[in-house]
Amino acid sequence: MSYLDLVSPLTRVYRLPTPLDLELGGTLPQVQVAYRTWGTLNAAGDNGVLVCHALTGNADLDDWWQPLLGEGQSLDPSRDFVVCSNILGSCYGTTGPTSLNPATGQPYGPEFPAITVRDMVRAQGQLLAGLGVRSLRLVIGGSLGGMQALEWVLQYPDQVQSLAVIAAPGRHSAWCIGLSEAQRQAIYTDPQWREGYYSADAPPVQGLAVARMIAMSTYRSWASFQQRFARNAADRGLGDRPPSPYAITDYLHYQGAKLVSRFDANTYVTLTRAMDYHDVGAGQVSLGPTPDQRYRAALGQITQPTLVVAIASDILYPPVEQKELVNLIPRAQLSWLQSPHGHDGFLIDMYPLNQQVRQFRLHTRAGE
Amino acid sequence: MSYLDLVSPLTRVYRLPTPLDLELGGTLPQVQVAYRTWGTLNAAGDNGVLVCHALTGNADLDDWWQPLLGEGQSLDPSRDFVVCSNILGSCYGTTGPTSLNPATGQPYGPEFPAITVRDMVRAQGQLLAGLGVRSLRLVIGGSLGGMQALEWVLQYPDQVQSLAVIAAPGRHSAWCIGLSEAQRQAIYTDPQWREGYYSADAPPVQGLAVARMIAMSTYRSWASFQQRFARNAADRGLGDRPPSPYAITDYLHYQGAKLVSRFDANTYVTLTRAMDYHDVGAGQVSLGPTPDQRYRAALGQITQPTLVVAIASDILYPPVEQKELVNLIPRAQLSWLQSPHGHDGFLIDMYPLNQQVRQFRLHTRAGE
Repeated sequence: MSYLDLVSPLTRVYRLPTPLDLELGGTLPQVQVAYRTWGTLNAAGDNGVLVCHALTGNADLDDWWQPLLGEGQSLDPSRDFVVCSNILGSCYGTTGPTSLNPATGQPYGPEFPAITVRDMVRAQGQLLAGLGVRSLRLVIGGSLGGMQALEWVLQYPDQVQSLAVIAAPGRHSAWCIGLSEAQRQAIYTDPQWREGYYSADAPPVQGLAVARMIAMSTYRSWASFQQRFARNAADRGLGDRPPSPYAITDYLHYQGAKLVSRFDANTYVTLTRAMDYHDVGAGQVSLGPTPDQRYRAALGQITQPTLVVAIASDILYPPVEQKELVNLIPRAQLSWLQSPHGHDGFLIDMYPLNQQVRQFRLHTRAGE
Repeated sequence: MSYLDLVSPLTRVYRLPTPLDLELGGTLPQVQVAYRTWGTLNAAGDNGVLVCHALTGNADLDDWWQPLLGEGQSLDPSRDFVVCSNILGSCYGTTGPTSLNPATGQPYGPEFPAITVRDMVRAQGQLLAGLGVRSLRLVIGGSLGGMQALEWVLQYPDQVQSLAVIAAPGRHSAWCIGLSEAQRQAIYTDPQWREGYYSADAPPVQGLAVARMIAMSTYRSWASFQQRFARNAADRGLGDRPPSPYAITDYLHYQGAKLVSRFDANTYVTLTRAMDYHDVGAGQVSLGPTPDQRYRAALGQITQPTLVVAIASDILYPPVEQKELVNLIPRAQLSWLQSPHGHDGFLIDMYPLNQQVRQFRLHTRAGE
């Protein structure tokens, strides 16, 4: 099975003309970026809208954020040239651990270099240049997509007109780093992991499933699980001896198995590490003597109108982080997405999210 | 190494005179209960105070809840006969998976039967009868200890004068069951697990460590980790290639290794399953036709003065659960423990907790 079989056949591939220099050292040769577009680029090349996806997402925006895409909606192909690309390090067509290493003819696997959110953004920047997009009306994303949006405006300040950051932080918290590490350790515990040198026939499915079970618990909320599952017994009626399996454990096993069938373990490790490294001030030594000062100064440089969406029930990137963004980004406004579903609310309660982004765009549209 | 080497030499052992019938079926023969006491039982046998410990705890109350124990404190050996016993299924002296199965002469291991919180309480009930304790002034516990306290008053309503339930629910939520399952699956993923038939020389240390890393993340809070670790680099200065290890990941690895050195994997599986089964209404068919009605009716039967302590930052047993207890238990009062540390607040912010329990005891002392 190729992970590419799981995405739209409309996905196209752009080959970067030059090797990609990586923030943490090294270069990636022959990088390709998988992407999709909706709408038409205008002659000035200034009606771009870039959508950044989350951890295990792909370029099929019409699949995972359908309500936001369409005439009159937040992402409007009748006016906008909407671009969504698979992120660097992923397994859905853009160069990542499952890609062939040109130096060896074998998949990179665990030898894929450490990358950062900034590297993802720089690869996207080259894609947009290649497509002739000179200016983006909006860069938008949730979760890891929101982290990319923040890095976008900092890497290409003159090309971004407005920004929407949803359920995302300006830097990864200790709690998130800790939970990421627990997930990676679950993968490493699987005997099929083999330090990342697993065969395509025998990947560390159990470890990756456990990682997903942990992650799913943090993507939702106490109330969301309670409302849906409570203490209900599993439908399948297994377990002749009590305690019988619970609906919630069946659900998490299902979610684990589903991810395993569509995602690669080395990719999961690579991308969660990139998220842990996320800090908009990282390495910006000219901005201040301490990491905290650099972080604050970096956000202070964002002059674009910025919509920051927070979800009260999000325990992974809790509202305290979005409030901080709004305090530090000069032209930012906070918007609350009402959702009991926790962090995943931005992928579940999409109709109210669409309304909020639409309103934001109407108010920032003056210059278009 | 024996886990018994890790507890006080003052620990004593009580052998139950009869086999213990288990709630989910079967009996355990030759059960022993490890316990410690402080103070002196009065002639009437009615000055007992029972302290129930949490998941990986033991009978050494003076070790893990020291500020609450002492003359003039919540648990006062100058007035009370304080008893704390290691719970059924644990590995610190009470019969559990590491104990020898009399039928085989080998440790029970994975063949230890499924037990419940109610079974733990019934074993404690026999211990107290054996010690001559006829009435308990207070039954108190946090987390799994609080679940036991609730079951205590329901199993022995005439022997309990008052109750203190700290950061605990009346039934285990879907979110907690899901996280427990993820932890058990991490253990099962370890090749050294061997379906529970691991050797004492090669236990599933990696899987158990991952389980603890997950658990620790849920015992604390976003704010607690952020305040203490933020994005700090690890002290040890490893990792010549960035991203360097973070202080939080080092901390979780340390916590994982620490648990592995003092706790048994089959025991962890047995006790987390018992917690998942926790529901004060479970099996009480006379109380109503649905599980929810049984749960509510069971709590409604508690006539004792009850202190319910909630921690606002607790994401594992969030305040919504303690508010529910207070709504359903006729003579319950809610008390907030101010702590940024999440669920573990009851083991960290012990001085304010001691004040709250002391106040509660002063007000309910009339009959003593």
